[in-house]
Amino acid sequence: MIKRIGVFDSGLGGLTVLRELRDYLPNCDFVYLGDTARTPYGSKSRSTIVRYSLECTQFLLTHELDLLVVACNTASSWALDVIKEEASCPVIGTIEPAIRLVTGHSAPGDTIGVIGTAATVSSSVYETQLKNQLPNAKVISKACPLFVPLVEEGIFEGEIVDSIVAHYLSSYKEAQIKALILACTHYPLLTNAISNFLGKDVRIIECSKAMAEEAKLLIEGDVNAAPSTSTRGRVEHYFVTDEVSKFNGLARLLLNGHLVEAVKIENLTSGRV
Amino acid sequence: MIKRIGVFDSGLGGLTVLRELRDYLPNCDFVYLGDTARTPYGSKSRSTIVRYSLECTQFLLTHELDLLVVACNTASSWALDVIKEEASCPVIGTIEPAIRLVTGHSAPGDTIGVIGTAATVSSSVYETQLKNQLPNAKVISKACPLFVPLVEEGIFEGEIVDSIVAHYLSSYKEAQIKALILACTHYPLLTNAISNFLGKDVRIIECSKAMAEEAKLLIEGDVNAAPSTSTRGRVEHYFVTDEVSKFNGLARLLLNGHLVEAVKIENLTSGRV
Repeated sequence: MIKRIGVFDSGLGGLTVLRELRDYLPNCDFVYLGDTARTPYGSKSRSTIVRYSLECTQFLLTHELDLLVVACNTASSWALDVIKEEASCPVIGTIEPAIRLVTGHSAPGDTIGVIGTAATVSSSVYETQLKNQLPNAKVISKACPLFVPLVEEGIFEGEIVDSIVAHYLSSYKEAQIKALILACTHYPLLTNAISNFLGKDVRIIECSKAMAEEAKLLIEGDVNAAPSTSTRGRVEHYFVTDEVSKFNGLARLLLNGHLVEAVKIENLTSGRV
Repeated sequence: MIKRIGVFDSGLGGLTVLRELRDYLPNCDFVYLGDTARTPYGSKSRSTIVRYSLECTQFLLTHELDLLVVACNTASSWALDVIKEEASCPVIGTIEPAIRLVTGHSAPGDTIGVIGTAATVSSSVYETQLKNQLPNAKVISKACPLFVPLVEEGIFEGEIVDSIVAHYLSSYKEAQIKALILACTHYPLLTNAISNFLGKDVRIIECSKAMAEEAKLLIEGDVNAAPSTSTRGRVEHYFVTDEVSKFNGLARLLLNGHLVEAVKIENLTSGRV
């Protein structure tokens, strides 16, 4: 029987995770939900993030899932425990896969940077979990609230990006970090600018591949996970809470030209489409 | 009898309007609502903006208002007509007062710029109303989506601001505009940087004073409106939809040290506090 995986994000960013999941799990079906009417989550408080995340979870659970993927770092940082309590299926968030990726290649005394939304950074969840795995590591976290609007403006390089990258990351350069976790699904689109500023010796850690590997392990029990080179998992539904047109256009860009026809849900809590 | 005025915005920006209203109407009471759990409105679609604006309106109307002030340019651009249909009291938006201010000082063939959120600009409402008043004027509108996150980061000047201002406003400089309407309540905090870039001959039009003058005219019938120099209107309630702490801190800054103790509404549609 084909297995079904639900994926949600506060908006578009989670599509970068969906892209990896489809490559790693070509025999699965996917249901995506982007809460575009209430995006972004990253500037909001814990209680609001938890409430919105639970509403997304409850909506997706009506689709009889075998796995739920929380593609949003902010939701994973504040709400993963309550989502796991709510869900009747296994749940994967952004944090543990990223932590595994960084600890697998780090020396005990390394200095490691974490950047994300204000909410993700204030949760300290990456810092706490890194310290559990690498007790002697030094972890420096920083919120970079201008990165998401930059990406949503389609500005990935040039003078504006360079000045904002320097504004946020100068202290990381001085601290000589060994690795930087991009704890937000939007940030990988700025990897070039970040890497140019920090230098090629700093490893840039993105969550999406690690999440897809973990999903494959859970669904297929395959410890040697690798992406498929020929087929991709099928997306049954794209659901959004705001209008579909802007989402469809940007989603097509993010999914390499894959045609997206999203459906708008009028009210997430009622489940009414 | 003391008159009561309701004011709403998608978040914090409307406090700049509230500040003016309190100065112009020292004998009125005020109820403020900031929809901080769903902010910003400016990147969302018409139907979502209309729905959220009506929910804000319905909530405020339970407070027996003599006047409703829509302090959000995005809500005014897309939802003012339906808000007026819904409301049992007079309604003031951001647009007409700003238009009056610019047309009062413009020559027929002037080139006028309008900057705002993506939603405000796509509504074309400023452009349409300017053309009605000044048929020979040339109007150039532009969305500046990075300005709000800049202001919310507390970055009002310096290299980042200058490069973003140049990015958005170079075409206005080339077009030799005579006036620029700041069609967003956040933008006045960038007035210095904008004015430095465009030159002192370009008039910068802010909505809040013109809105307060119109409110005074409606409430008191006073055609020679001027702010009070001694007393200010009392704010009965600050309501928000997200946590109060961040709002209280920023509101105090925006209101020149005035102590703000907001109350969180769990669900705007239920009216439950």
